[in-house]
Amino acid sequence: MTKLAVVGVGKIAKTQHIPAITASPDFDLVAFVSPDGRGDSSDIPVFRSLEALAESALGVEAVALCTPPDVRSALAREALDLGLHVLLEKPPSTTVTDALALEAYALSLGLTIFATWHSAYSAAVPTARALLRTHDVQSATIRWQEDVEKWHPNATWFWEPGAFGVFDAGINALSILVSVSPCDIVYDSAHLLIPAGLHAPVLAEVSLRDPEDTIAIKCTFDWDYTGPDETWNIDWVLADNAKLSLSSGGAKLSLDGQIIVDAQDTEYAGLYRRFADLIARGETDVDTRPLALVTDILAFGAREQGPARK
Amino acid sequence: MTKLAVVGVGKIAKTQHIPAITASPDFDLVAFVSPDGRGDSSDIPVFRSLEALAESALGVEAVALCTPPDVRSALAREALDLGLHVLLEKPPSTTVTDALALEAYALSLGLTIFATWHSAYSAAVPTARALLRTHDVQSATIRWQEDVEKWHPNATWFWEPGAFGVFDAGINALSILVSVSPCDIVYDSAHLLIPAGLHAPVLAEVSLRDPEDTIAIKCTFDWDYTGPDETWNIDWVLADNAKLSLSSGGAKLSLDGQIIVDAQDTEYAGLYRRFADLIARGETDVDTRPLALVTDILAFGAREQGPARK
Repeated sequence: MTKLAVVGVGKIAKTQHIPAITASPDFDLVAFVSPDGRGDSSDIPVFRSLEALAESALGVEAVALCTPPDVRSALAREALDLGLHVLLEKPPSTTVTDALALEAYALSLGLTIFATWHSAYSAAVPTARALLRTHDVQSATIRWQEDVEKWHPNATWFWEPGAFGVFDAGINALSILVSVSPCDIVYDSAHLLIPAGLHAPVLAEVSLRDPEDTIAIKCTFDWDYTGPDETWNIDWVLADNAKLSLSSGGAKLSLDGQIIVDAQDTEYAGLYRRFADLIARGETDVDTRPLALVTDILAFGAREQGPARK
Repeated sequence: MTKLAVVGVGKIAKTQHIPAITASPDFDLVAFVSPDGRGDSSDIPVFRSLEALAESALGVEAVALCTPPDVRSALAREALDLGLHVLLEKPPSTTVTDALALEAYALSLGLTIFATWHSAYSAAVPTARALLRTHDVQSATIRWQEDVEKWHPNATWFWEPGAFGVFDAGINALSILVSVSPCDIVYDSAHLLIPAGLHAPVLAEVSLRDPEDTIAIKCTFDWDYTGPDETWNIDWVLADNAKLSLSSGGAKLSLDGQIIVDAQDTEYAGLYRRFADLIARGETDVDTRPLALVTDILAFGAREQGPARK
């Protein structure tokens, strides 16, 4: 068992990482790192810094970084300097260049770094990937609409310069899209609605395509959706007009209305299996494609100012 | 001699590419491609499309794409499909993902693609690169200030969604920076001034750094400069407080006020030597780092609305 510490003990650590690590046959959760000294309700010791963790006698070998993204890459570098393997919550960093530099650094030290995209480990994703490899696609549609206030009440860091706004959620759709698509996906155009006084979009209409420009992918990312049907769907129209639908964020798959996969969420279990596998093989996995697409959208989309948020 | 056609016969083709190709011992300029059927004042034949060029008996082997960036990657793909080696004016495409997909496509066909950054071929750049490999750097400053109306009178495409604004010029500074720096360069923060009603910045204050966060790089990109001293300078403060200054867009270099290099502009001659070399070796050269930095800046910089342009 690899001795692992969780760094950043917030909502995502408590609801996803800690249960997945506790259930994993590959990792032993030996410590938390949290600047305020708070862990969870268990007896697992808490350190205020990576340095303090490293000076302990716990013999930790790996960390899972579950902090907000802006401090993630500096902490990752610090962990690598301490000789630790690193798992990163998504997004791995705020920029592609930073993520690639981090990967190069881990490789130079012979350590594993794993930039996770949890949605790409959803239950129905492998079946979708297999079907898209054997069926030609005419077009695709992403609809990712949810109420940010329900999921992240009172959080404000999504709207600062350098943050992703609605793409904090939408990058999950893009991570699935690039993971299942047999071709490259490139940016085409976008329209972004930015609330007055803020820096990141709350609503985005985005066109993506393949490099040959034969498949149009229309996407709606809406973080102000307060209706009854929050939606995390990707639909493909196949060459024979059949419709392949990945819904519930990747948990369910249907072909022409026939349900093929309808499974429980096991995303984080999959992430930790993959992390253990990477460590065993001495490999890294830093897929920057979802981040590159979000960066293109934020850089090159037409921006419209919307009403101020309440 | 490789038989080459110039695609897009605008200002940059006439002032830089055509003279460089004519003087090159490696290329024979056999045709132009221009949708309006206009070439230069010579007798060189003009075709209205790449297809028409390929159907001719000229036996063209390579193209230089000198069109505006938004159509460049589709034309490049078309040229590759016709079996032609491709040189791309900067920027190679509007997005990093598109440039990388293009490179992969050229590799799959066994053809050369060369995404040029002409400023990185400036006369003093090799000496600056050599000095930066043997001297530690404390900090660096980029100052790129010019009057856009003087250089590009009445051009409007710089300000559309998907365009770079001041970074159409500023990307030259970034292409030099990444070319001479021994370490990776990553985005830190930026402040962008966007003229009312337009989509791209006219002025940008940008902070870059190395991944270890030990070298701060402060940059000013100003496209509304109408004073007497247009400036295209990169200055480094070295570990011993000596000052290394690359000026005139890369043509001049001084160390502590002592001029080391002061040469004529030979950028485009260097580009065509490199293109010939890549073709001979069967290699590609697509450096996406300058484009990645501009994308990060445009995606994540804080945006302020400035006055409308006259």
